[in-house]
Amino acid sequence: MIIIGGPASNGLEESIGRELHAKSVRAEHKLFPDGESHVKIPCPLKGEDAVLVQSTYAPQDKHLMELFLMADTARSMGAASITAVVPYLAYLRQDRKFNEGEAVSSETVLKLLNALDVSKLVVVQPHKTAPFSAFRGEAVFVDPIPMQADAIMESIDDPVVLAPDKGGIGRAEELASIFECEYSHIEKLRNVDTGSVNMVAPLQGSFDSKTVLIIDDIISTGNTMALGTKEVLAKGATKVVAVATHLIMVDDAYDKLVKAGVSEIYGTNTVPYSGAKMLDIGAEIAAVL
Amino acid sequence: MIIIGGPASNGLEESIGRELHAKSVRAEHKLFPDGESHVKIPCPLKGEDAVLVQSTYAPQDKHLMELFLMADTARSMGAASITAVVPYLAYLRQDRKFNEGEAVSSETVLKLLNALDVSKLVVVQPHKTAPFSAFRGEAVFVDPIPMQADAIMESIDDPVVLAPDKGGIGRAEELASIFECEYSHIEKLRNVDTGSVNMVAPLQGSFDSKTVLIIDDIISTGNTMALGTKEVLAKGATKVVAVATHLIMVDDAYDKLVKAGVSEIYGTNTVPYSGAKMLDIGAEIAAVL
Repeated sequence: MIIIGGPASNGLEESIGRELHAKSVRAEHKLFPDGESHVKIPCPLKGEDAVLVQSTYAPQDKHLMELFLMADTARSMGAASITAVVPYLAYLRQDRKFNEGEAVSSETVLKLLNALDVSKLVVVQPHKTAPFSAFRGEAVFVDPIPMQADAIMESIDDPVVLAPDKGGIGRAEELASIFECEYSHIEKLRNVDTGSVNMVAPLQGSFDSKTVLIIDDIISTGNTMALGTKEVLAKGATKVVAVATHLIMVDDAYDKLVKAGVSEIYGTNTVPYSGAKMLDIGAEIAAVL
Repeated sequence: MIIIGGPASNGLEESIGRELHAKSVRAEHKLFPDGESHVKIPCPLKGEDAVLVQSTYAPQDKHLMELFLMADTARSMGAASITAVVPYLAYLRQDRKFNEGEAVSSETVLKLLNALDVSKLVVVQPHKTAPFSAFRGEAVFVDPIPMQADAIMESIDDPVVLAPDKGGIGRAEELASIFECEYSHIEKLRNVDTGSVNMVAPLQGSFDSKTVLIIDDIISTGNTMALGTKEVLAKGATKVVAVATHLIMVDDAYDKLVKAGVSEIYGTNTVPYSGAKMLDIGAEIAAVL
Protein backbone atom coordinates (compact mmCIF):
# COMPACT_ATOMS: atom_id res chain seq x y z
CA MET A 1 0.00 0.00 0.00
CA ILE A 2 1.26 3.46 -0.98
CA ILE A 3 -0.37 6.60 0.39
CA ILE A 4 -0.27 9.45 -2.14
CA GLY A 5 -1.17 12.94 -0.99
CA GLY A 6 -2.65 15.29 -3.57
CA PRO A 7 -2.43 19.09 -3.67
CA ALA A 8 -5.34 19.31 -1.18
CA SER A 9 -4.36 16.50 1.19
CA ASN A 10 -3.56 19.02 3.93
CA GLY A 11 -0.65 16.73 4.88
CA LEU A 12 -2.91 13.84 5.90
CA GLU A 13 -0.94 11.31 3.83
CA GLU A 14 1.84 11.67 6.40
CA SER A 15 -0.18 10.88 9.50
CA ILE A 16 -2.00 8.06 7.70
CA GLY A 17 1.30 6.60 6.49
CA ARG A 18 2.82 6.87 9.95
CA GLU A 19 -0.13 5.02 11.53
CA LEU A 20 0.01 2.23 8.95
CA HIS A 21 3.81 2.06 8.65
CA ALA A 22 3.19 2.49 4.93
CA LYS A 23 5.09 4.56 2.40
CA SER A 24 3.63 8.01 1.85
CA VAL A 25 4.50 10.40 -0.96
CA ARG A 26 3.24 13.72 -2.19
CA ALA A 27 2.02 14.01 -5.78
CA GLU A 28 3.84 16.69 -7.74
CA HIS A 29 1.59 19.45 -8.85
CA LYS A 30 1.74 22.59 -10.94
CA LEU A 31 -0.45 25.02 -12.80
CA PHE A 32 0.20 25.78 -16.45
CA PRO A 33 0.22 29.49 -17.35
CA ASP A 34 -3.36 29.23 -18.62
CA GLY A 35 -4.59 27.77 -15.30
CA GLU A 36 -4.80 24.07 -16.17
CA SER A 37 -3.80 21.70 -13.37
CA HIS A 38 -1.09 19.14 -13.83
CA VAL A 39 -0.29 16.27 -11.49
CA LYS A 40 2.44 13.66 -11.43
CA ILE A 41 2.73 10.64 -9.14
CA PRO A 42 6.44 10.35 -8.33
CA CYS A 43 6.79 6.62 -7.62
CA PRO A 44 5.92 3.36 -9.41
CA LEU A 45 2.45 1.98 -8.61
CA LYS A 46 2.42 -1.22 -10.68
CA GLY A 47 0.67 -3.91 -8.65
CA GLU A 48 0.37 -1.61 -5.61
CA ASP A 49 -2.75 -0.72 -3.69
CA ALA A 50 -2.83 3.04 -4.25
CA VAL A 51 -4.45 5.21 -1.61
CA LEU A 52 -5.05 8.74 -2.90
CA VAL A 53 -5.58 11.40 -0.26
CA GLN A 54 -7.23 14.53 -1.59
CA SER A 55 -9.74 16.72 0.19
CA THR A 56 -12.07 18.90 -1.88
CA TYR A 57 -12.41 22.17 0.00
CA ALA A 58 -12.41 25.43 -2.00
CA PRO A 59 -11.62 25.76 -4.83
CA GLN A 60 -13.73 22.61 -4.92
CA ASP A 61 -13.80 22.08 -8.68
CA LYS A 62 -10.03 22.40 -9.01
CA HIS A 63 -9.46 19.97 -6.15
CA LEU A 64 -11.99 17.51 -7.58
CA MET A 65 -10.32 17.70 -10.98
CA GLU A 66 -6.93 17.01 -9.36
CA LEU A 67 -8.47 13.97 -7.66
CA PHE A 68 -9.84 12.75 -11.00
CA LEU A 69 -6.43 13.23 -12.64
CA MET A 70 -4.68 11.37 -9.81
CA ALA A 71 -7.11 8.44 -9.99
CA ASP A 72 -6.83 8.09 -13.74
CA THR A 73 -3.05 8.33 -13.55
CA ALA A 74 -2.84 5.68 -10.82
CA ARG A 75 -4.93 3.35 -12.97
CA SER A 76 -2.73 3.97 -16.03
CA MET A 77 0.35 3.20 -13.91
CA GLY A 78 -1.03 -0.27 -13.18
CA ALA A 79 -2.15 0.13 -9.56
CA ALA A 80 -3.81 -3.05 -8.28
CA SER A 81 -6.55 -1.03 -6.61
CA ILE A 82 -7.44 2.61 -6.15
CA THR A 83 -8.80 3.91 -2.87
CA ALA A 84 -9.77 7.58 -2.68
CA VAL A 85 -9.56 9.15 0.76
CA VAL A 86 -11.53 12.38 0.45
CA PRO A 87 -11.60 13.74 4.01
CA TYR A 88 -14.03 16.48 3.03
CA LEU A 89 -16.13 15.59 0.00
CA ALA A 90 -17.69 18.64 -1.63
CA TYR A 91 -21.15 18.79 -3.21
CA LEU A 92 -22.79 16.43 -0.69
CA ARG A 93 -25.23 19.14 0.37
CA GLN A 94 -26.69 19.13 -3.16
CA ASP A 95 -28.29 15.74 -2.62
CA ARG A 96 -31.76 16.07 -4.13
CA LYS A 97 -33.78 18.04 -6.65
CA PHE A 98 -35.61 20.84 -4.88
CA ASN A 99 -36.99 21.89 -8.27
CA GLU A 100 -37.24 20.12 -11.64
CA GLY A 101 -34.13 20.68 -13.74
CA GLU A 102 -31.72 21.06 -10.85
CA ALA A 103 -28.44 19.18 -10.75
CA VAL A 104 -28.07 16.55 -8.02
CA SER A 105 -24.40 17.35 -7.85
CA SER A 106 -23.47 14.81 -5.18
CA GLU A 107 -24.53 11.96 -7.48
CA THR A 108 -22.61 13.41 -10.40
CA VAL A 109 -19.39 13.53 -8.40
CA LEU A 110 -19.78 9.93 -7.24
CA LYS A 111 -20.55 8.78 -10.78
CA LEU A 112 -17.33 10.38 -11.99
CA LEU A 113 -15.35 8.49 -9.33
CA ASN A 114 -16.96 5.27 -10.56
CA ALA A 115 -15.77 6.04 -14.08
CA LEU A 116 -12.19 6.32 -12.85
CA ASP A 117 -12.19 2.84 -11.27
CA VAL A 118 -12.07 4.05 -7.68
CA SER A 119 -13.02 0.90 -5.79
CA LYS A 120 -13.09 2.28 -2.26
CA LEU A 121 -14.00 5.74 -1.08
CA VAL A 122 -13.26 6.97 2.44
CA VAL A 123 -15.02 10.15 3.56
CA VAL A 124 -14.97 11.74 7.00
CA GLN A 125 -18.46 12.43 8.37
CA PRO A 126 -20.30 13.11 5.11
CA HIS A 127 -23.18 15.57 5.33
CA LYS A 128 -25.52 12.91 3.95
CA THR A 129 -24.89 9.25 3.26
CA ALA A 130 -27.82 8.63 0.88
CA PRO A 131 -25.97 9.98 -2.20
CA PHE A 132 -23.36 7.22 -1.82
CA SER A 133 -25.82 4.72 -3.31
CA ALA A 134 -24.59 6.22 -6.63
CA PHE A 135 -21.07 4.97 -5.85
CA ARG A 136 -20.48 1.44 -7.12
CA GLY A 137 -17.49 0.61 -4.93
CA GLU A 138 -17.21 0.36 -1.17
CA ALA A 139 -17.95 3.63 0.66
CA VAL A 140 -16.58 3.94 4.19
CA PHE A 141 -17.46 6.81 6.50
CA VAL A 142 -15.10 7.87 9.26
CA ASP A 143 -16.75 8.97 12.49
CA PRO A 144 -14.70 11.70 14.19
CA ILE A 145 -16.96 12.08 17.25
CA PRO A 146 -15.15 9.70 19.66
CA MET A 147 -11.87 11.45 18.86
CA GLN A 148 -13.49 14.88 19.23
CA ALA A 149 -14.97 13.84 22.59
CA ASP A 150 -11.55 12.66 23.80
CA ALA A 151 -9.92 15.93 22.80
CA ILE A 152 -12.39 18.22 24.57
CA MET A 153 -13.23 15.96 27.53
CA GLU A 154 -10.71 17.30 30.03
CA SER A 155 -11.57 20.97 29.57
CA ILE A 156 -15.34 20.54 29.77
CA ASP A 157 -17.39 20.62 32.95
CA ASP A 158 -21.14 19.96 33.26
CA PRO A 159 -21.94 19.86 29.54
CA VAL A 160 -25.08 19.68 27.50
CA VAL A 161 -24.94 18.96 23.77
CA LEU A 162 -26.89 20.82 21.12
CA ALA A 163 -27.34 20.22 17.41
CA PRO A 164 -27.98 23.36 15.37
CA ASP A 165 -30.85 21.68 13.52
CA LYS A 166 -33.03 18.61 13.67
CA GLY A 167 -31.00 16.83 10.96
CA GLY A 168 -27.94 16.89 13.21
CA ILE A 169 -29.58 15.29 16.25
CA GLY A 170 -27.77 11.98 15.67
CA ARG A 171 -24.39 13.64 16.09
CA ALA A 172 -25.58 15.39 19.27
CA GLU A 173 -26.89 12.11 20.66
CA GLU A 174 -23.58 10.36 19.97
CA LEU A 175 -21.49 13.04 21.64
CA ALA A 176 -23.91 13.24 24.60
CA SER A 177 -23.74 9.48 25.11
CA ILE A 178 -19.96 9.74 25.53
CA PHE A 179 -20.30 12.63 28.00
CA GLU A 180 -23.33 10.97 29.61
CA CYS A 181 -25.21 14.25 29.42
CA GLU A 182 -28.41 15.62 27.93
CA TYR A 183 -28.78 16.67 24.33
CA SER A 184 -31.21 18.55 22.20
CA HIS A 185 -31.50 20.43 18.95
CA ILE A 186 -32.42 23.94 17.99
CA GLU A 187 -35.58 24.71 16.05
CA LYS A 188 -35.39 27.44 13.46
CA LEU A 189 -38.60 29.49 13.46
CA ARG A 190 -39.32 31.85 10.63
CA ASN A 191 -41.43 34.88 11.44
CA VAL A 192 -44.09 34.79 8.69
CA ASP A 193 -44.49 38.58 8.78
CA THR A 194 -40.86 39.72 8.76
CA GLY A 195 -39.18 36.64 7.27
CA SER A 196 -36.52 36.78 9.96
CA VAL A 197 -35.25 33.53 11.49
CA ASN A 198 -35.33 32.95 15.23
CA MET A 199 -34.01 30.05 17.21
CA VAL A 200 -35.63 28.09 19.96
CA ALA A 201 -33.78 25.45 21.93
CA PRO A 202 -36.52 22.98 22.96
CA LEU A 203 -34.66 21.97 26.12
CA GLN A 204 -36.19 24.98 27.89
CA GLY A 205 -34.39 26.24 30.95
CA SER A 206 -31.82 23.49 31.24
CA PHE A 207 -28.87 25.53 29.87
CA ASP A 208 -28.44 27.39 33.16
CA SER A 209 -24.79 27.15 34.33
CA LYS A 210 -24.02 24.59 31.64
CA THR A 211 -21.19 24.33 29.14
CA VAL A 212 -23.00 23.96 25.82
CA LEU A 213 -21.29 21.89 23.13
CA ILE A 214 -22.79 22.81 19.79
CA ILE A 215 -21.87 20.06 17.36
CA ASP A 216 -22.17 20.13 13.58
CA ASP A 217 -20.47 18.45 10.64
CA ILE A 218 -19.68 21.67 8.77
CA ILE A 219 -19.32 25.29 9.75
CA SER A 220 -19.92 27.22 6.55
CA THR A 221 -21.39 30.72 6.99
CA GLY A 222 -21.63 30.14 10.75
CA ASN A 223 -25.09 31.75 10.84
CA THR A 224 -26.98 28.87 12.46
CA MET A 225 -24.30 28.22 15.04
CA ALA A 226 -24.05 31.93 15.92
CA LEU A 227 -27.79 32.21 16.44
CA GLY A 228 -27.82 29.04 18.55
CA THR A 229 -24.97 30.38 20.67
CA LYS A 230 -26.84 33.61 21.43
CA GLU A 231 -29.95 31.62 22.30
CA VAL A 232 -28.29 29.38 24.89
CA LEU A 233 -26.20 32.17 26.42
CA ALA A 234 -29.44 34.13 26.89
CA LYS A 235 -30.83 31.05 28.64
CA GLY A 236 -28.01 31.07 31.18
CA ALA A 237 -25.26 28.92 29.67
CA THR A 238 -21.80 29.62 31.10
CA LYS A 239 -19.81 28.81 27.99
CA VAL A 240 -20.34 27.65 24.40
CA VAL A 241 -17.86 25.37 22.63
CA ALA A 242 -18.27 24.78 18.88
CA VAL A 243 -17.33 21.27 17.75
CA ALA A 244 -17.24 20.69 14.02
CA THR A 245 -15.41 18.49 11.56
CA HIS A 246 -15.14 20.50 8.36
CA LEU A 247 -14.34 24.17 8.95
CA ILE A 248 -15.30 25.72 5.63
CA MET A 249 -15.63 29.11 7.38
CA VAL A 250 -17.02 31.29 4.59
CA ASP A 251 -16.09 35.00 4.79
CA ASP A 252 -16.58 36.33 8.34
CA ALA A 253 -17.85 33.08 9.89
CA TYR A 254 -15.19 33.20 12.59
CA ASP A 255 -16.05 36.76 13.62
CA LYS A 256 -19.74 35.90 13.71
CA LEU A 257 -19.10 32.99 16.09
CA VAL A 258 -16.80 34.94 18.38
CA LYS A 259 -19.17 37.91 18.44
CA ALA A 260 -22.06 35.58 19.28
CA GLY A 261 -20.06 34.37 22.28
CA VAL A 262 -18.44 31.07 21.24
CA SER A 263 -15.46 30.47 23.56
CA GLU A 264 -13.66 27.77 21.62
CA ILE A 265 -13.89 26.25 18.15
CA TYR A 266 -12.71 22.73 17.43
CA GLY A 267 -12.14 21.48 13.89
CA THR A 268 -10.22 18.70 12.17
CA ASN A 269 -7.60 18.68 9.44
CA THR A 270 -10.06 17.55 6.75
CA VAL A 271 -9.99 21.24 5.76
CA PRO A 272 -7.08 23.59 6.56
CA TYR A 273 -7.95 26.42 8.91
CA SER A 274 -5.86 28.48 11.29
CA GLY A 275 -8.40 30.02 13.65
CA ALA A 276 -9.42 26.94 15.65
CA LYS A 277 -8.08 23.97 17.59
CA MET A 278 -7.45 21.48 14.81
CA LEU A 279 -7.57 17.75 15.54
CA ASP A 280 -5.69 15.22 13.40
CA ILE A 281 -8.11 12.70 11.86
CA GLY A 282 -5.24 10.62 10.37
CA ALA A 283 -5.45 7.71 12.81
CA GLU A 284 -9.20 7.36 12.33
CA ILE A 285 -8.74 7.27 8.56
CA ALA A 286 -5.86 4.79 8.85
CA ALA A 287 -8.10 2.48 10.89
CA VAL A 288 -10.44 1.88 7.94
CA LEU A 289 -7.76 1.36 5.27
CA MET B 1 -33.62 19.62 -30.40
CA ILE B 2 -33.09 22.12 -27.58
CA ILE B 3 -29.89 24.15 -27.34
CA ILE B 4 -28.91 24.82 -23.72
CA GLY B 5 -26.20 27.35 -22.99
CA GLY B 6 -24.17 26.86 -19.84
CA PRO B 7 -22.42 29.51 -17.72
CA ALA B 8 -19.45 29.47 -20.14
CA SER B 9 -21.35 29.30 -23.45
CA ASN B 10 -20.30 32.86 -24.29
CA GLY B 11 -23.77 33.29 -25.85
CA LEU B 12 -23.16 30.68 -28.55
CA GLU B 13 -26.45 28.88 -27.84
CA GLU B 14 -28.21 31.89 -29.37
CA SER B 15 -26.39 31.94 -32.68
CA ILE B 16 -26.59 28.14 -32.94
CA GLY B 17 -30.32 28.19 -32.16
CA ARG B 18 -30.90 30.97 -34.71
CA GLU B 19 -29.11 29.03 -37.44
CA LEU B 20 -31.06 25.84 -36.73
CA HIS B 21 -34.41 27.51 -35.97
CA ALA B 22 -34.26 25.54 -32.73
CA LYS B 23 -35.24 26.58 -29.23
CA SER B 24 -32.32 27.91 -27.20
CA VAL B 25 -32.29 28.51 -23.44
CA ARG B 26 -29.72 29.49 -20.88
CA ALA B 27 -29.11 27.19 -17.91
CA GLU B 28 -29.59 28.92 -14.58
CA HIS B 29 -26.46 29.08 -12.54
CA LYS B 30 -25.32 30.21 -9.14
CA LEU B 31 -22.53 29.78 -6.65
CA PHE B 32 -23.27 28.72 -3.10
CA PRO B 33 -21.54 30.80 -0.39
CA ASP B 34 -18.83 28.12 -0.04
CA GLY B 35 -18.03 28.23 -3.77
CA GLU B 36 -19.85 25.15 -5.02
CA SER B 37 -21.46 25.52 -8.44
CA HIS B 38 -25.15 24.90 -8.95
CA VAL B 39 -26.90 24.59 -12.30
CA LYS B 40 -30.53 24.22 -13.30
CA ILE B 41 -31.96 23.51 -16.74
CA PRO B 42 -35.11 25.62 -16.98
CA CYS B 43 -37.19 23.62 -19.48
CA PRO B 44 -38.41 20.00 -19.82
CA LEU B 45 -36.05 17.73 -21.76
CA LYS B 46 -37.97 14.44 -21.71
CA GLY B 47 -37.55 12.77 -25.09
CA GLU B 48 -35.64 15.77 -26.48
CA ASP B 49 -32.24 15.80 -28.12
CA ALA B 50 -30.35 18.02 -25.70
CA VAL B 51 -27.45 20.07 -27.03
CA LEU B 52 -25.35 21.49 -24.19
CA VAL B 53 -23.13 24.43 -25.10
CA GLN B 54 -20.36 25.04 -22.60
CA SER B 55 -16.83 26.17 -23.35
CA THR B 56 -14.08 25.41 -20.84
CA TYR B 57 -11.82 28.45 -20.76
CA ALA B 58 -10.49 29.61 -17.35
CA PRO B 59 -11.42 28.77 -14.69
CA GLN B 60 -11.26 25.50 -16.61
CA ASP B 61 -12.08 23.14 -13.75
CA LYS B 62 -15.17 25.10 -12.72
CA HIS B 63 -16.42 25.23 -16.29
CA LEU B 64 -15.76 21.51 -16.77
CA MET B 65 -17.62 20.71 -13.56
CA GLU B 66 -20.57 22.81 -14.74
CA LEU B 67 -20.54 20.83 -18.00
CA PHE B 68 -20.54 17.55 -16.06
CA LEU B 69 -23.44 18.76 -13.90
CA MET B 70 -25.42 19.87 -16.95
CA ALA B 71 -24.89 16.54 -18.73
CA ASP B 72 -25.90 14.47 -15.72
CA THR B 73 -28.94 16.67 -15.17
CA ALA B 74 -30.04 16.40 -18.81
CA ARG B 75 -29.82 12.61 -18.55
CA SER B 76 -31.82 12.55 -15.32
CA MET B 77 -34.49 14.71 -17.00
CA GLY B 78 -34.97 12.03 -19.66
CA ALA B 79 -33.26 13.62 -22.66
CA ALA B 80 -33.27 11.26 -25.65
CA SER B 81 -29.64 12.11 -26.42
CA ILE B 82 -26.97 14.40 -25.07
CA THR B 83 -24.63 16.31 -27.34
CA ALA B 84 -21.92 18.41 -25.73
CA VAL B 85 -20.74 21.39 -27.76
CA VAL B 86 -17.48 22.43 -26.12
CA PRO B 87 -16.16 25.20 -28.40
CA TYR B 88 -12.87 25.32 -26.51
CA LEU B 89 -12.03 22.05 -24.78
CA ALA B 90 -9.41 22.49 -22.06
CA TYR B 91 -6.66 20.00 -21.21
CA LEU B 92 -6.07 18.88 -24.82
CA ARG B 93 -2.45 20.05 -24.67
CA GLN B 94 -1.79 17.44 -21.95
CA ASP B 95 -2.09 14.60 -24.43
CA ARG B 96 0.76 12.27 -23.54
CA LYS B 97 3.09 11.25 -20.75
CA PHE B 98 6.35 13.16 -21.04
CA ASN B 99 7.51 11.40 -17.87
CA GLU B 100 6.28 8.31 -16.02
CA GLY B 101 3.61 9.17 -13.47
CA GLU B 102 2.22 12.17 -15.32
CA ALA B 103 -1.49 12.61 -15.85
CA VAL B 104 -2.70 12.44 -19.46
CA SER B 105 -5.37 14.95 -18.60
CA SER B 106 -7.03 15.08 -22.01
CA GLU B 107 -7.96 11.40 -21.75
CA THR B 108 -9.30 11.83 -18.23
CA VAL B 109 -11.65 14.60 -19.34
CA LEU B 110 -12.96 12.55 -22.25
CA LYS B 111 -13.47 9.51 -20.02
CA LEU B 112 -15.58 11.62 -17.66
CA LEU B 113 -17.78 12.73 -20.55
CA ASN B 114 -18.25 9.05 -21.47
CA ALA B 115 -19.43 8.34 -17.93
CA LEU B 116 -22.13 11.00 -18.25
CA ASP B 117 -23.65 9.45 -21.39
CA VAL B 118 -22.55 12.22 -23.74
CA SER B 119 -23.06 10.57 -27.13
CA LYS B 120 -21.74 13.33 -29.37
CA LEU B 121 -19.02 15.85 -28.70
CA VAL B 122 -18.46 18.90 -30.88
CA VAL B 123 -15.18 20.76 -30.44
CA VAL B 124 -13.87 23.67 -32.48
CA GLN B 125 -10.34 23.09 -33.81
CA PRO B 126 -8.96 20.90 -31.02
CA HIS B 127 -5.24 21.24 -30.36
CA LYS B 128 -4.82 17.51 -30.99
CA THR B 129 -7.32 14.96 -32.23
CA ALA B 130 -5.55 11.80 -31.02
CA PRO B 131 -6.91 12.06 -27.43
CA PHE B 132 -10.46 11.70 -28.78
CA SER B 133 -9.89 7.97 -29.22
CA ALA B 134 -10.70 7.88 -25.47
CA PHE B 135 -14.18 9.22 -26.23
CA ARG B 136 -16.68 6.44 -26.91
CA GLY B 137 -19.29 8.56 -28.70
CA GLU B 138 -19.05 10.50 -31.95
CA ALA B 139 -16.48 13.29 -31.88
CA VAL B 140 -16.91 16.06 -34.47
CA PHE B 141 -14.34 18.78 -35.04
CA VAL B 142 -15.36 22.15 -36.43
CA ASP B 143 -12.88 23.75 -38.81
CA PRO B 144 -12.96 27.56 -38.49
CA ILE B 145 -10.37 28.26 -41.19
CA PRO B 146 -12.71 28.82 -44.18
CA MET B 147 -14.73 31.27 -42.08
CA GLN B 148 -11.56 32.98 -40.85
CA ALA B 149 -10.30 33.27 -44.44
CA ASP B 150 -13.60 34.85 -45.52
CA ALA B 151 -13.47 37.37 -42.71
CA ILE B 152 -9.95 38.61 -43.36
CA MET B 153 -9.89 38.20 -47.17
CA GLU B 154 -10.93 41.73 -48.15
CA SER B 155 -8.42 43.55 -45.97
CA ILE B 156 -5.42 41.43 -46.95
CA ASP B 157 -3.14 42.10 -49.90
CA ASP B 158 -0.26 39.89 -51.08
CA PRO B 159 -0.22 37.47 -48.17
CA VAL B 160 2.02 34.67 -47.03
CA VAL B 161 0.93 32.29 -44.29
CA LEU B 162 3.10 31.20 -41.40
CA ALA B 163 2.58 28.60 -38.69
CA PRO B 164 4.39 29.36 -35.42
CA ASP B 165 5.67 25.80 -35.22
CA LYS B 166 5.97 22.65 -37.31
CA GLY B 167 2.92 21.07 -35.67
CA GLY B 168 0.72 23.84 -37.03
CA ILE B 169 1.78 23.50 -40.66
CA GLY B 170 -1.54 21.84 -41.62
CA ARG B 171 -3.48 24.94 -40.59
CA ALA B 172 -1.06 27.19 -42.51
CA GLU B 173 -1.41 25.01 -45.59
CA GLU B 174 -5.20 25.13 -45.42
CA LEU B 175 -5.34 28.91 -45.09
CA ALA B 176 -2.73 29.37 -47.81
CA SER B 177 -4.69 27.15 -50.19
CA ILE B 178 -7.69 29.47 -49.83
CA PHE B 179 -5.54 32.56 -50.42
CA GLU B 180 -3.56 30.74 -53.13
CA CYS B 181 -0.34 31.90 -51.53
CA GLU B 182 2.83 30.44 -50.07
CA TYR B 183 3.10 29.07 -46.57
CA SER B 184 5.77 28.01 -44.16
CA HIS B 185 6.46 27.44 -40.51
CA ILE B 186 8.85 28.86 -38.01
CA GLU B 187 11.61 26.77 -36.48
CA LYS B 188 12.40 27.35 -32.84
CA LEU B 189 16.16 27.13 -32.24
CA ARG B 190 17.47 26.88 -28.71
CA ASN B 191 20.93 28.28 -28.10
CA VAL B 192 22.63 25.43 -26.23
CA ASP B 193 24.91 27.86 -24.36
CA THR B 194 22.42 30.49 -23.22
CA GLY B 195 19.19 28.47 -23.33
CA SER B 196 17.46 31.34 -25.15
CA VAL B 197 15.02 30.57 -27.95
CA ASN B 198 15.44 32.08 -31.39
CA MET B 199 13.17 31.83 -34.35
CA VAL B 200 13.98 31.12 -37.95
CA ALA B 201 11.39 31.30 -40.68
CA PRO B 202 12.59 28.75 -43.25
CA LEU B 203 11.03 30.64 -46.15
CA GLN B 204 14.16 32.82 -46.31
CA GLY B 205 13.78 36.24 -47.87
CA SER B 206 10.27 35.85 -49.19
CA PHE B 207 8.58 38.02 -46.55
CA ASP B 208 9.67 41.21 -48.25
CA SER B 209 6.64 43.51 -48.78
CA LYS B 210 4.28 40.75 -47.77
CA THR B 211 1.36 40.69 -45.35
CA VAL B 212 2.16 37.79 -43.08
CA LEU B 213 -0.77 35.83 -41.66
CA ILE B 214 0.43 33.94 -38.60
CA ILE B 215 -2.14 31.26 -37.88
CA ASP B 216 -2.46 29.18 -34.72
CA ASP B 217 -5.23 27.38 -32.88
CA ILE B 218 -4.55 28.98 -29.50
CA ILE B 219 -2.86 32.17 -28.36
CA SER B 220 -1.87 31.50 -24.76
CA THR B 221 1.21 33.39 -23.53
CA GLY B 222 1.73 34.83 -27.03
CA ASN B 223 5.48 34.21 -26.78
CA THR B 224 5.87 32.14 -29.94
CA MET B 225 3.69 34.41 -32.02
CA ALA B 226 5.51 37.52 -30.77
CA LEU B 227 8.91 36.08 -31.64
CA GLY B 228 7.64 35.00 -35.07
CA THR B 229 6.27 38.49 -35.70
CA LYS B 230 9.60 40.16 -34.92
CA GLU B 231 11.37 37.66 -37.18
CA VAL B 232 9.24 38.31 -40.26
CA LEU B 233 9.13 42.09 -39.76
CA ALA B 234 12.93 42.01 -39.63
CA LYS B 235 12.82 40.11 -42.91
CA GLY B 236 10.86 42.91 -44.60
CA ALA B 237 7.20 42.03 -44.01
CA THR B 238 4.85 45.03 -44.33
CA LYS B 239 2.27 43.86 -41.83
CA VAL B 240 1.56 40.93 -39.53
CA VAL B 241 -1.97 39.70 -38.86
CA ALA B 242 -2.53 37.12 -36.11
CA VAL B 243 -5.28 34.61 -36.86
CA ALA B 244 -6.26 32.30 -34.02
CA THR B 245 -9.33 30.46 -32.84
CA HIS B 246 -9.04 30.30 -29.06
CA LEU B 247 -7.77 33.52 -27.50
CA ILE B 248 -6.68 32.34 -24.06
CA MET B 249 -4.41 35.41 -23.79
CA VAL B 250 -2.57 34.73 -20.53
CA ASP B 251 -1.44 37.85 -18.61
CA ASP B 252 0.20 40.37 -20.96
CA ALA B 253 -0.11 38.31 -24.16
CA TYR B 254 -1.88 41.16 -25.94
CA ASP B 255 0.82 43.69 -25.07
CA LYS B 256 3.53 41.28 -26.18
CA LEU B 257 1.90 40.86 -29.58
CA VAL B 258 1.31 44.57 -30.12
CA LYS B 259 4.83 45.42 -28.99
CA ALA B 260 6.23 42.80 -31.37
CA GLY B 261 4.41 44.55 -34.20
CA VAL B 262 1.19 42.57 -34.80
CA SER B 263 -1.26 44.90 -36.58
CA GLU B 264 -4.47 42.96 -36.10
CA ILE B 265 -5.60 39.98 -34.03
CA TYR B 266 -8.51 37.80 -35.10
CA GLY B 267 -10.19 35.38 -32.69
CA THR B 268 -13.51 33.57 -32.42
CA ASN B 269 -16.17 33.46 -29.74
CA THR B 270 -15.10 30.01 -28.46
CA VAL B 271 -13.43 32.06 -25.69
CA PRO B 272 -14.57 35.56 -24.66
CA TYR B 273 -12.02 38.29 -25.28
CA SER B 274 -12.37 42.00 -25.86
CA GLY B 275 -9.06 43.01 -27.44
CA ALA B 276 -9.44 41.42 -30.87
CA LYS B 277 -11.77 41.10 -33.86
CA MET B 278 -14.00 38.26 -32.73
CA LEU B 279 -15.69 36.03 -35.33
CA ASP B 280 -18.90 34.13 -34.54
CA ILE B 281 -18.41 30.38 -34.96
CA GLY B 282 -22.13 29.63 -34.33
CA ALA B 283 -23.04 28.83 -37.95
CA GLU B 284 -20.12 26.41 -38.33
CA ILE B 285 -21.16 24.60 -35.14
CA ALA B 286 -24.80 24.53 -36.22
CA ALA B 287 -23.76 22.89 -39.50
CA VAL B 288 -22.55 19.74 -37.71
CA LEU B 289 -25.52 19.35 -35.30
